[in-house]
Amino acid sequence: MKTRLSFVLNFAVSFAFCLAFCLALLPAAARAEEGMWMPQQIPQLAERLKTMGFRGEPQAFADLTGQPMGAIVSLGGCSASFVSPDGLIVTNHHCVQGALQFNSTPQKNLLEDGFLASSRDQELTAGPGSRVYVTTSVKEVTAEITGRLDPKLADRDRHEVIEKRLKERTAACEKDGLRCRVASFFDGLKYFELAQLEIQDVRLVYAPAAGIGNFGGETDNWQWPRHTGDWSFYRAYVSPTGKSVTYAKENVPFKPKHWLKVSPEGAGPGDLVFVAGYPGRTQRFATYAQTQELAEWSFPRTVRRNTELIALLDEVGKKSKETEIRVTTRKRGLNNTLTNRKGVVEGFKKGNLLAKKEGMEKDLATWIAADPNRQKSYGDVLPALNVLSAERLKTRERDTTLTDLLGSGSSLLPAAHTLYELSRQRPKKDLDRETEYQERNWSRIREGQERLQRSYDPVADRALLRYILMEASKLPGGQRIEALDKEAGFSTGMSDAGAGKKIDALLDRLYAGTKLGDKAARLALFDKSTAEILATKDPMISLAIVLDPLWQANRERAKTRDGAHERLGARYAQAVLEKSGGLTAPDANGTLRVTYGRVLGVPARDGLIYFPQTTLQGVVEKATGTGEFNAPKKELDAIAAMKAGKKTAYADPKLGSVPVNFLSTVDTTGGNSGSATLNAKGELCGLLFDGTFDTVASDYLYDTEKTRSIHVDSRYMLWTMSEVDGAANLLKEIGEAPSLDVTGAH
Amino acid sequence: MKTRLSFVLNFAVSFAFCLAFCLALLPAAARAEEGMWMPQQIPQLAERLKTMGFRGEPQAFADLTGQPMGAIVSLGGCSASFVSPDGLIVTNHHCVQGALQFNSTPQKNLLEDGFLASSRDQELTAGPGSRVYVTTSVKEVTAEITGRLDPKLADRDRHEVIEKRLKERTAACEKDGLRCRVASFFDGLKYFELAQLEIQDVRLVYAPAAGIGNFGGETDNWQWPRHTGDWSFYRAYVSPTGKSVTYAKENVPFKPKHWLKVSPEGAGPGDLVFVAGYPGRTQRFATYAQTQELAEWSFPRTVRRNTELIALLDEVGKKSKETEIRVTTRKRGLNNTLTNRKGVVEGFKKGNLLAKKEGMEKDLATWIAADPNRQKSYGDVLPALNVLSAERLKTRERDTTLTDLLGSGSSLLPAAHTLYELSRQRPKKDLDRETEYQERNWSRIREGQERLQRSYDPVADRALLRYILMEASKLPGGQRIEALDKEAGFSTGMSDAGAGKKIDALLDRLYAGTKLGDKAARLALFDKSTAEILATKDPMISLAIVLDPLWQANRERAKTRDGAHERLGARYAQAVLEKSGGLTAPDANGTLRVTYGRVLGVPARDGLIYFPQTTLQGVVEKATGTGEFNAPKKELDAIAAMKAGKKTAYADPKLGSVPVNFLSTVDTTGGNSGSATLNAKGELCGLLFDGTFDTVASDYLYDTEKTRSIHVDSRYMLWTMSEVDGAANLLKEIGEAPSLDVTGAH
Repeated sequence: MKTRLSFVLNFAVSFAFCLAFCLALLPAAARAEEGMWMPQQIPQLAERLKTMGFRGEPQAFADLTGQPMGAIVSLGGCSASFVSPDGLIVTNHHCVQGALQFNSTPQKNLLEDGFLASSRDQELTAGPGSRVYVTTSVKEVTAEITGRLDPKLADRDRHEVIEKRLKERTAACEKDGLRCRVASFFDGLKYFELAQLEIQDVRLVYAPAAGIGNFGGETDNWQWPRHTGDWSFYRAYVSPTGKSVTYAKENVPFKPKHWLKVSPEGAGPGDLVFVAGYPGRTQRFATYAQTQELAEWSFPRTVRRNTELIALLDEVGKKSKETEIRVTTRKRGLNNTLTNRKGVVEGFKKGNLLAKKEGMEKDLATWIAADPNRQKSYGDVLPALNVLSAERLKTRERDTTLTDLLGSGSSLLPAAHTLYELSRQRPKKDLDRETEYQERNWSRIREGQERLQRSYDPVADRALLRYILMEASKLPGGQRIEALDKEAGFSTGMSDAGAGKKIDALLDRLYAGTKLGDKAARLALFDKSTAEILATKDPMISLAIVLDPLWQANRERAKTRDGAHERLGARYAQAVLEKSGGLTAPDANGTLRVTYGRVLGVPARDGLIYFPQTTLQGVVEKATGTGEFNAPKKELDAIAAMKAGKKTAYADPKLGSVPVNFLSTVDTTGGNSGSATLNAKGELCGLLFDGTFDTVASDYLYDTEKTRSIHVDSRYMLWTMSEVDGAANLLKEIGEAPSLDVTGAH
Repeated sequence: MKTRLSFVLNFAVSFAFCLAFCLALLPAAARAEEGMWMPQQIPQLAERLKTMGFRGEPQAFADLTGQPMGAIVSLGGCSASFVSPDGLIVTNHHCVQGALQFNSTPQKNLLEDGFLASSRDQELTAGPGSRVYVTTSVKEVTAEITGRLDPKLADRDRHEVIEKRLKERTAACEKDGLRCRVASFFDGLKYFELAQLEIQDVRLVYAPAAGIGNFGGETDNWQWPRHTGDWSFYRAYVSPTGKSVTYAKENVPFKPKHWLKVSPEGAGPGDLVFVAGYPGRTQRFATYAQTQELAEWSFPRTVRRNTELIALLDEVGKKSKETEIRVTTRKRGLNNTLTNRKGVVEGFKKGNLLAKKEGMEKDLATWIAADPNRQKSYGDVLPALNVLSAERLKTRERDTTLTDLLGSGSSLLPAAHTLYELSRQRPKKDLDRETEYQERNWSRIREGQERLQRSYDPVADRALLRYILMEASKLPGGQRIEALDKEAGFSTGMSDAGAGKKIDALLDRLYAGTKLGDKAARLALFDKSTAEILATKDPMISLAIVLDPLWQANRERAKTRDGAHERLGARYAQAVLEKSGGLTAPDANGTLRVTYGRVLGVPARDGLIYFPQTTLQGVVEKATGTGEFNAPKKELDAIAAMKAGKKTAYADPKLGSVPVNFLSTVDTTGGNSGSATLNAKGELCGLLFDGTFDTVASDYLYDTEKTRSIHVDSRYMLWTMSEVDGAANLLKEIGEAPSLDVTGAH
């Protein structure tokens, strides 16, 4: 008795001191490393990787046609990877929302219930516009894009020249099934040409129920501790002859040269992990003025706007189950951005980041001023960039509202404008068309117009447009959209009630008269001439045309501004790089990147530590049987069975349960969702799916102490496939042994 | 560059593995030890304490007149300790609420602003009824109370005999200035006579602002991480000749024989700590049926009732600042109980504790049945206790509502009943009076009637009584309070609106006619005969008299039930003790206890660890400048000054800041609030003030893994006194050097 007691107590002492010791190490130890590296930069990091315990060949990451990089793909907005020789692709559950929505009906709601194709012929098309991109080459083309440029060129002309060179290179690069992009790195300091194999027939294979795949919902989004089973499976299909073609019944699975082994061992504390994927956008090279505009104007505006739009959609969703399903994806997107932007705004405040950024810029200015050569190279850059920022600021309310109107605020008005603009661009020579209206993008535009139908709901669309029109009615004097004022009958200083009446009258007219809500009618306008489109007298198109002159003028102004940025941004980045010295990763720009780090907890707040792993125990603790925490009964049963003694290969003996999610120090952002998390052997040990709320501001100013990414552990995925969803066919395909007593088909 | 980098990365590895190692140890290591030990039990724990690293003399804890126990005092409901030879006492901020409220006015709100007497003559009376009790002896008297009892005695008679013996012993023990109590331990298995020196002149010396003393408010109450500066100072006064007397200007500070040194070193992870104080009540020896009633009926009822009462008081508080101050203490009490009960209910559900308790009781029954001797000693106990529980259950709705009416639900009706009952008890011989109406308690009853005025507000009182009357109107058939039905005009199944009208009419009559809201009028009735009281025809007294017959009948029933418990409870406890073997602490019963443990964090939820310390950094993070997180500007300024380089002796170099609160594994409950937390040298290194929400159910079934108590670190107290509140006089008195540049008087 006493021996045992003393044993226990000595352990308590050990633990207390051990934890104190760990925590004492923390300030030095818990450093996350900034860097969404270009694959070709990885070999230069060989020594760092060795220090971290990597015994593999860093060169492998630079070879895009080898293992593991050949298995890494983009879905356009999300990342993914091949996990079988038959084109099976794993990504996040939240990356297949569109496909689930496309295949859902009020009777059969895949968004809620999930989906499993138990054989290939049950696999469902992910819907128009779904793509899989496999990056096949990256080539530096800086000289080809910005070489031999007359320094005397006016900004507008400079932009024109660069734009033309970009279009020409892209056209030259694109061959059968290849999609090319010439992307700017370090704000135009470098250009790389990226070629991607484009697969157009993408099918939904497996998604767990929302109670697993979206467990925790908006409440847990960006939060830790996390218990989300954020995975789903697609399959890439090509024609029987191996060509990239759109969906056809006779198509066959694509045979990738490389695919990842899904590790049944997951990842644990201290493990070195890599993430390979397509981070969308960071702005760490932005100036202080640009950052300030984001943190103090743009993001707070998004927070307000998205909060109100979500409330609107909640309201209309209550009235019809069908509407509710249709607005689900848009709402989730608004919510996701909302939480991110909130996190950034809070992060800036808490971390006093604007002051830090200002300090960094002052240091840069001092450094430039201290040397005549630097003064000559960079002295004019910052002042000139600040003039550009100040200029933009003067009409930002108006311009952002116009973007909401013709951009993505609602669905039909942007569709009207797109169809009208396409009709005006089509007659031109392809190289003279605006980039987004070049022939290579026509199928995308058409698919966009098809896809629109999944989420289009007349009641919701009208409510969204009403919201933006109300915003437009309140624009300050000097920033009015005058054509709209005239069309809608707005006047400055009008009461909300007064504007509301005018808007409702306009909306009555628009939605009563427009045919654009009808998919066939809308698609029929795709090939029509401007004259034919005008002849429809569709009121939604008429409104788009009313707004178009300002849109065109804004585009012209943007081109001049872009020309200035092309002249100044590269030199700004060069100054920053020169001052910092050493190897630096460029800002994320939607191209393939590799980041590395460790599975590691973090002191979250004073007195609170995030442990780097969660387990099934937490699923049980959070499960409420309803709403966002509605873990499926079959999952809870499977957990109970495990607790009662049922063996599983996916439990971690140290944790006494199956690991669910883990934290790591890798550097990721939006677009990385669905990225393969690789262990030191290059096997898929998890999927990246989120970052922590506390550190989303790292997209603008990196926090080396606290930044963490959130991953789902491959063991949770395999355990669920085996014990909950009965996905024996897929387990077999990825080389895992299915459980002997699978509980039943999905 | 690389060397430094590799150094950092190696640290990261160390940390990850170190943390993983610590966590691996956790299940064995983080065990809290059950035991609110009687001081005389501590020497028997010598070996355990030695194993934990205690090098002192355990015998010291059994000597109530020595160091440190001679310094430990009770405030009646809270614990405290002497910290200077001039009778200075430290306790929790939340334990001096009554004194702050007593001295507050709408113009000068001490509850909000705090208070500091910069000289002795500024010290304020804590108000009538404030007491300091110093336990001077504890003596076992089991034989004297339950010896030579005729086993054939009926339960009612058994209770009478025991009650008489208790009164006689108490009377014999109480000498000048001593207050005695004969308390039951292990449900009547043992009795101990406790003598306490009673000090009646208690004065308020220092309380920080609510933004420190109650920082976090209800939001953080029972929570971790915590940042509450929950300390305040009283001083004990006696007559110039050293007698215990009530407040008088000429009184002088009491000179205790022992006082604690306040450690400027606080406590850190792994430290052994003791807590000496007066835990109020635990029910770990309760039967399954008793526990079930608490967890499934009594506590859920309290949760509902307190939630509704708090909403009521919020409502009336909005209408007048004066009312708001008056209801503050009551509301805080309701809230505190509410959160505790919620925690218990949740804890029972999450931990499946009822099933565990049931299992334990089944094991006990099996153990009893397995042996004929045991069968003979204990075989009848459980069935008989269960019959008692079932019996009580039949009228629990009615009886609890009656207790709310005449007990503490509102103020005036209970006052009326107390005065009436006192008039009926006074003519009796003292030993024949009900215990609470014995002469020794008259001054308490009078002070209670005086103190009532602090929190009495006619609007709030009426609202509270209305609530309880509404409850009474809804009692189920068979459990009606018939006298009230007749008086108020209730009928079973009446609508809420109907009952409401009747109640409002009754309340109009009661509050229009009663004089009891007037302090002088109320106190004038204190010495009056029953006839004189009846002659007032005060409607509140009339209602009390209407309800009295059921109250008397319930008391009679309770006495019979108590007699049965006295017969059965002791044997039940004996069976439990015999089965468990070894040394066990009795349930808390408001008597002096000592518990020991370690400063230790705890895995709070899946993926989340509570670090055992918080710092000033957390105060800054939480501070909102308003409401519950309104850290005073002068505190935030002092923190900023420290960050800017101002030295303080109270910072912890390992944490880089001043520690604020800490967690430990000591076993405590309500009543322990304000207890001295002692380090291994017997110095005051902190004050206990709370437990964690997750583990409040430990009062009923102890959780050895997760139970944690919450303390304020002595360094936070000293730092605030020095750097924020300018309490140089007190720092000097307790032997700490005041800061050289105190920022100013309070």
